[in-house]
Formats: sequence, structure tokens, C-alpha cells
Amino acid sequence: MEQSVQAQTRLAAIDLGSNSFHMVVARVVNGQIQVIDKRGEKVQLAQGLDPKQGISEAAQERALACLERFGQHLRGIPRSHVTVLGTNTLRAAKNSRAFMQKANEMLGFPIEVISGIEEARLVYLGVAHTLADDEGKRLVIDIGGGSTEFIIGERFAPIELESLHMGCVTFSDRYFSNGELTEDNFRRAINAAQSELLSIQSRYQRLGWQNVVGSSGTMRATSRVLQNYGLTDGEVTLEGLIGLKKIILKAKHVNDLSLQGINDQRLQVYPAGLAILIAIFQSLRIETLTYSDGALREGALYDLIGRNTHEDVREKTVDAMQARFVVDIEQAENVKTTALKLLEQCAKSWKLNEPEYEEWLRWSADLHEVGLAIAHNSYHKHGAYLIRYSDMHGFSNQTQYNISLLVRSHRRKFPVSDYDYLPKRGRNILIRIAILLRLAVLLHHGRGIEDVVEPQIEAKKYQIKLTFPEGYLENHPMTSLDLDSEKQYLDGFGYNLIVNS
Amino acid sequence: MEQSVQAQTRLAAIDLGSNSFHMVVARVVNGQIQVIDKRGEKVQLAQGLDPKQGISEAAQERALACLERFGQHLRGIPRSHVTVLGTNTLRAAKNSRAFMQKANEMLGFPIEVISGIEEARLVYLGVAHTLADDEGKRLVIDIGGGSTEFIIGERFAPIELESLHMGCVTFSDRYFSNGELTEDNFRRAINAAQSELLSIQSRYQRLGWQNVVGSSGTMRATSRVLQNYGLTDGEVTLEGLIGLKKIILKAKHVNDLSLQGINDQRLQVYPAGLAILIAIFQSLRIETLTYSDGALREGALYDLIGRNTHEDVREKTVDAMQARFVVDIEQAENVKTTALKLLEQCAKSWKLNEPEYEEWLRWSADLHEVGLAIAHNSYHKHGAYLIRYSDMHGFSNQTQYNISLLVRSHRRKFPVSDYDYLPKRGRNILIRIAILLRLAVLLHHGRGIEDVVEPQIEAKKYQIKLTFPEGYLENHPMTSLDLDSEKQYLDGFGYNLIVNS
Repeated sequence: MEQSVQAQTRLAAIDLGSNSFHMVVARVVNGQIQVIDKRGEKVQLAQGLDPKQGISEAAQERALACLERFGQHLRGIPRSHVTVLGTNTLRAAKNSRAFMQKANEMLGFPIEVISGIEEARLVYLGVAHTLADDEGKRLVIDIGGGSTEFIIGERFAPIELESLHMGCVTFSDRYFSNGELTEDNFRRAINAAQSELLSIQSRYQRLGWQNVVGSSGTMRATSRVLQNYGLTDGEVTLEGLIGLKKIILKAKHVNDLSLQGINDQRLQVYPAGLAILIAIFQSLRIETLTYSDGALREGALYDLIGRNTHEDVREKTVDAMQARFVVDIEQAENVKTTALKLLEQCAKSWKLNEPEYEEWLRWSADLHEVGLAIAHNSYHKHGAYLIRYSDMHGFSNQTQYNISLLVRSHRRKFPVSDYDYLPKRGRNILIRIAILLRLAVLLHHGRGIEDVVEPQIEAKKYQIKLTFPEGYLENHPMTSLDLDSEKQYLDGFGYNLIVNS
Repeated sequence: MEQSVQAQTRLAAIDLGSNSFHMVVARVVNGQIQVIDKRGEKVQLAQGLDPKQGISEAAQERALACLERFGQHLRGIPRSHVTVLGTNTLRAAKNSRAFMQKANEMLGFPIEVISGIEEARLVYLGVAHTLADDEGKRLVIDIGGGSTEFIIGERFAPIELESLHMGCVTFSDRYFSNGELTEDNFRRAINAAQSELLSIQSRYQRLGWQNVVGSSGTMRATSRVLQNYGLTDGEVTLEGLIGLKKIILKAKHVNDLSLQGINDQRLQVYPAGLAILIAIFQSLRIETLTYSDGALREGALYDLIGRNTHEDVREKTVDAMQARFVVDIEQAENVKTTALKLLEQCAKSWKLNEPEYEEWLRWSADLHEVGLAIAHNSYHKHGAYLIRYSDMHGFSNQTQYNISLLVRSHRRKFPVSDYDYLPKRGRNILIRIAILLRLAVLLHHGRGIEDVVEPQIEAKKYQIKLTFPEGYLENHPMTSLDLDSEKQYLDGFGYNLIVNS
């Protein structure tokens, strides 16, 4: 019994970074996280990344072996208590889908690829939990293998979030590929990083901050080495970084480099990380930075607790999108209520009784009219575009994609071929959810002019039977007409709609 | 001399509707339009429109013959004083591009295809000029061959604009194709129209209006027949329309129909127009409607005067888009100023000295950052999407597309294949404008952190030579680095960028 309670309250977050994979397993004790296991492995997924080929065979093997080891620690934890996040390399690599399928099997949990902005949000959440709950704005910087995140925030709330395409692994490949530690390689790397930084420089400086915090391996290594070589007391300064660069230049080649406090794997990508850090100090005119060991995975854990205790950041994101694109809330609520009533009736027979399916239906109903902000004509397509490409805090790319596809399908011809990218089971599930959304939208076509009564719905496989109260369809000839068209639409991809009155 | 002054102040607007083509030629006298010539021909461009084939051969022949006749009246009028608008059929038909090339040649002026919303805006402008400048909201309805426009406005300002996919030609093909004038055909047409109307019904009723005005041939015919048959005094009422339907039903077949006051060509599509009108009266609960002979082409004329006297509605549209998507105005202004300085220097050698090229460059600079409202990542693509699909008052589809493409091209890799849809000369022109925009954006990459000095630019064919003041590039290493990348990008499609210092 003790065992089972513990198993239920265990949480885990895994971060599949471009340089390292990290796992943290925790228990929740009085609403606080108590870490019970922590592992990190330098997988270097982005190393030798070929723009055409994608993730190399060798990197894939290292990654899968690591995930197999991680998987052992996750046995018995329920699916809703585990989050596995893919970042820059999995966002960018051409073969990431194929790799992820293998990885899912090895790990036993699905991988969610998140955007750079979502990564920034979670990093901030992780770091904020390690800091005193003080006043004033803070700038948090996380140098990853393939991207670097910059967040200005106050307490637990991020104000600005940005993710730039520069990281210690990709910059090593690009500017230190010959292994030479020369002024020239450093200059090229620093210039490139400064050019990336131009896009945030003036906006971030205008907003300002009281103190600067860094997370990630590059930061930890830097803080440690600065201390070990007596350059600072562990805090990071531009002077210290320049001193460190001088020490590194003396080695002339990375194979001859050794720095007390940095292991050999980190050393390979450290010069590039240092160059990025110097550029950041110069461009943003930072005086001192302190290291925090909060990071993406800790942030993901806190996010997971929120989701499980009704403080789901995703609800706030959906509310904010409704506001930004001036959605007719009343109509959205009406459609949602009807959609959920329909779902309730056929959740069992259509195998839709996973909580996440209800979430997808709910959010797609909330957002089905966002595209009207662009134009009425084809607004279902515009809505799909906005949902697919907006920075939606808390959402993985896949969930965003699913909601986008539901909104795309909520009216007019059913875009059935757009569902082909999904595996067969997932495809059928999402199509069924889309059909429920369509029916709810159809029933509310009159936009509150007339009262809507939900029909009884019986769904099995490819058949949907709707039964309306007597006289309802006679009194609602438009609904009747719309159901006739809907029959045709659904017939087009093998679904049979039967309407009884 | 007299002749030449007159020629300069003549204006013309042509409306290539789905049912009729109309032309109006006017002079401007004390800021007012004085019509000097007016022609209309029932071309029925949408008749027999095949979804796969597009506009039929027969319809194309009728159209080209009509445009040849129109063209004679336009000789000597400068290009900026003529507007030729294509509406629903040209928006929808698959072969419209090919047809338009032939039509351009026949007419001697380019055809601009406009959106349904833009059509609605111009219809309102045309009708508003025929009405007393009174208080209160008015609903204006224009039943066309392929679409029907609904506008609520006050004085000269539209408040709501909508265009629905229903028109007397397309509904004739769909619901009266057998020529039978039966209750059943009428019912199907009325139901279909009511279903279309559901999307505006509650919104429009909530907003309300004091009086209702109708324009277009269907409206004129209805008003005239109601009067001729003693059903009303010329005003349109639901009772009158139902009476008219009864008269029509008696004929049983369209070939046996004759209505005093409607010519034979109009008669063919009149029953469908009447069905649409009945549906509108019922759905929007209209009591009476009066006919106005203002229409799209008159609206286009007034719009043309505005453009030529610095009241260009397009400037307001661009301002409104900047506001809606929260553009950093200072940055946009800086980029625009630099872009125009560059254009000035090479307008002659690069053959960019048409006023419209300057407009495209100006507007694309104004709007190049709108995509940031969706996400920073790939914002040039998001901006292009927003510009392409938003209802932009005053803009033709082609101009919108050009600006969209310029914004798409303003950073990162140059999407040169996206320009292939343009004819060779237009393609080169737009690519040159895009290059100027890119250079202006590049020079302002620092977003106001440092002062920007425009280089001298010499452009000839595929070569651009930039000369910076001495020491400028040394003091702006980021600009220098960005110019190196830009060289590569431009090299990729055969342009040679030379940078002197």
C-alpha cells in the first residue's frame, strides 16, 4: 500500500537536450518537490548533425542506450506524471520523427517536442524556484547545445522570453571544427553570437534587470573554473571570461586543453560556450552573473505539478489567445458545452476516454474562431495557422499541431489527407474528435438566435447516429439543411451520419 | 491644350462582374464626379463556369469583345486614372490568370482582382455618395452574379463589411439549372441563401440600422417590376417579393417567363436573384428596401480620386495593421527612410521609377515586422501570411500579394522561386525592390542602438555596389558581418553585391 501511494505521487521530467540528456525524478511533499533521483548523460545528440541527413547514427545509438537506462527508473509512474521534452535538435533534425518513434519505444513514454520559447518559459520556472522570492527583475540565461534562452522575469512570472539559434554544440561544429583554439576562431564565434543577439539587445536593455542568473552546463563549468583559477569567487564577470579565454588560447588545440573542474566531454564544446558567453556579456552589458542549478527539467516538474493541481498554464494561454484575437467568448463557450456533451455520450464506444482527448476538444472549441482576426473568408485555415505558429506557453508542438488540425477541420470540406501524418490509431482518434467539434459548431450555426438542444448521439466505428427531440428539426430547418451537407462531407471519407427525429 | 487638360482629369472605373461588365468615365469638377460616359454589357462571365475548367470559351469571347469596345473609350487616359476591378468569378476561376493576360492586352490597362470585402467597401462608397448625408446607420446590400455584399455603415464610413458566396448567376446554375420555376427550386435556393446568411445574421441584427438600401441589377429590376405590376410604389417589401414569386411560378418555365421592365438577359438569372432577396428579407427581418444606382464602379471612382488627392485609404489600412499587430513604429520608420533613400539613388538605373514601386517598398517597410505578433521564429513568413490573407481595404489582391512577398523576402534566405509566378519583367522589378528592403533592414539590424548612415548605392542589372563612409564598417562590425552573409544570399540567385569602404 505504502508502495502504491509513493508510486502515484512520483513525478519525472526528462530533457533531451542537444548536448546532454537529463532526468530528474521527484516526490511531492506538501506541495514541494523533493528530488529522489537525478541523472545526466552527455549524449551530444547534435554532434555531427548533418542538415540533410539529420541526427547521425552514432548519436542515435548513444541516445537510445541512454533512454533505455532512464526508462528503468520510470517504471510504474503513470503517464500523466512524466514529461519528456525534446528541444533544439529534435525541433530541427529532418529525421527526428523516425528517431522519436524508436525513442518512445525504448523509454515507454511519449516525447513532446517544445518550441524555443516554451523551453525559455520552463527554464525560467526552474531557475525561479531556486532563487529567493525577492523584488525586482532578473535576467535568466541558459546556454544549451543548440539554442540559448533569454528570459526577463519577476518572481515566477516571465516578462520577455526569447530563444536564439546559438549553442555550444552547434557553434563548436561551426567555428571550432578544426579544434584550433585561435583568436580568429574565437572572434568569428563571438561576432556570430553578437549578430544573433542584435534581435533582442535593445528591447532587453530597455526593459532592464536587477540581477543576472545563468543555468546550464556551460555556466556551471565557467563558475567552477573561474573559482579554481582564482579569477573570481565563482561569480562570472567579463574580466574573468577574458582571462579564461587567454588560458584557453595557450593550449592552442582542444586536444591539448585541460581545465581543472571541467570534464573531457564538456571541454570539447566549452570554448564555443565561452565565446557565446563573452558575446552575451558584451552585447547586453552584463557586469556579473551568478550560477543557478535550476533548469529546464526542474521547470518541467513544477509545470507538471501545476497541471495536476488545476493551475494549468495552458488554460491561461488559451484565454490569452482568445483575448488577443478578440474571440466571441459566448459562442466559443456554447460550442464547447455542446461538444463536451456529445463527447460524454460516445467517449466509451469511440474510445475517447483519455483526459487529453477531452482537453483537445475543449481547447479547439475555445479557439475555433481565432482566424476571424485575419479575415472571415477561410477563417478555419487562418485559425489553424495562428494556432500552429503562435508561441503557446505550456503546449508541446504536437498538441499545438493537433489543436490546429481540429480547428482547420471544423467547417467546410474535411481535410482528411492532413491526418495522414498520424499513426493509424491516433489518426482515427483525432478524426473522431474533429467530427464532434464539427457537429457542435453546426448546431450553433445560428449563433444564439435560437436555443440549441443537443441530440442523443450513438457512435460506433464509422457510424454516427443522432436523435433529436420530436419536432426539433422541423423547427430548425437550417440545422436540418446543414446536417444534409454534413452527411455528404462525412461520407467523403467513409463516415456514415444518420439523423433521426 | 484644352484637350490635354481634359484628358488629364478624366477618370474611369471598370467593373468586371460575374454577370455584367460596367464602365463609367467621369471628369472631376470642383472635387465632384461628373459622369461623362457609362456603359454596361451582360457578359455573364460566370455562366457555365466549370469548377475544373474555369471560365468557358464562349464567356471569354464575349468578355474580350466587350473589353475591346470599352478600351476605345479609355485611350489617352493615364494609367493612374483608370481602375479595372475583377470580382467573384475572377477570384475563383482556375483559368483566370490566363484570361486576365488576354484581357489586359485587349483593354490596355491592368486588371486588379479584389476581395469580396474590398468589393463591399467600394460598393458602400458608391452608394453612400448617392444618399443624403443623414444621421443613422444604413444597411447596404448588393446582389452580384457570384457574391452578395452586406455593409452596415454611417455616412461615408463602413462599420461592418461582409461578402457571401451567393449570387444570381451561380444560384441560377445551381438551383434553376433545369429552367423550371417551381416551389421546390425556389425553396432550395432560399434555404441555401439563408444558410449562408447565418454567419452574419445575429451580428448584423445586434448592430442594427435605420434604413436599407439595395444596389445592383437584381435590385433595380425588382423595384421596377414591383412598380409596373402595381405591387408597391417601387420600394421593396417582403409582401411584394412574395407576390412577384407567385407571378413567376405561373410561368412554370424560364423560357415562358416575361416580366414587364426586365430584359431577356436579366430574366434568365432573375428568379435566383429573387430567391436570394427573399432569403435576405426573411433572415435579416427587413421591412423595406430602396434602390440606389450607386455601385462598385462609382465607389471605385471616388476611391481613385482619394488616391490622387492624398486621401489614400490604403495608408489608413497600413496604419491600422501596424496598430493591430503592435508594430515597433520607430523601427519601421527607420527602415522605410533608409529604403527610400536607397531607392532614390538607383530608381533610374534599375528602372524603378514608377510611383507604385515606391509604394510597394514603403508599405512593405511599414509592415515588415507584423509577423512578430505571431512569433519571433520565422516572423517574416508569418508577416507574409498576415498580409496575404487579411482584408486590406483599398488593396487589390495582386498588390497585397506583392507586399506579402516582399515581407517574406526581407530576411534570411531569399525565396527566389516564389517570384516565378510573375512575368519576367515584373519578376526582376520585384526582386530589386526586395533587395533594397533587405539592405535597409540589414542596416538597421541594431534597432537604434547605433546611428545608421546610408551607403552610396550603384545598381546596374545584376550588380549592386555599396560605398560606405571611411571607417563606418570598421565601427560597425556587425553590419560588416551581415553584409558578408547578404553577399552569399544574393549570390545564390545571381546578384553580385560589392561593398566598398
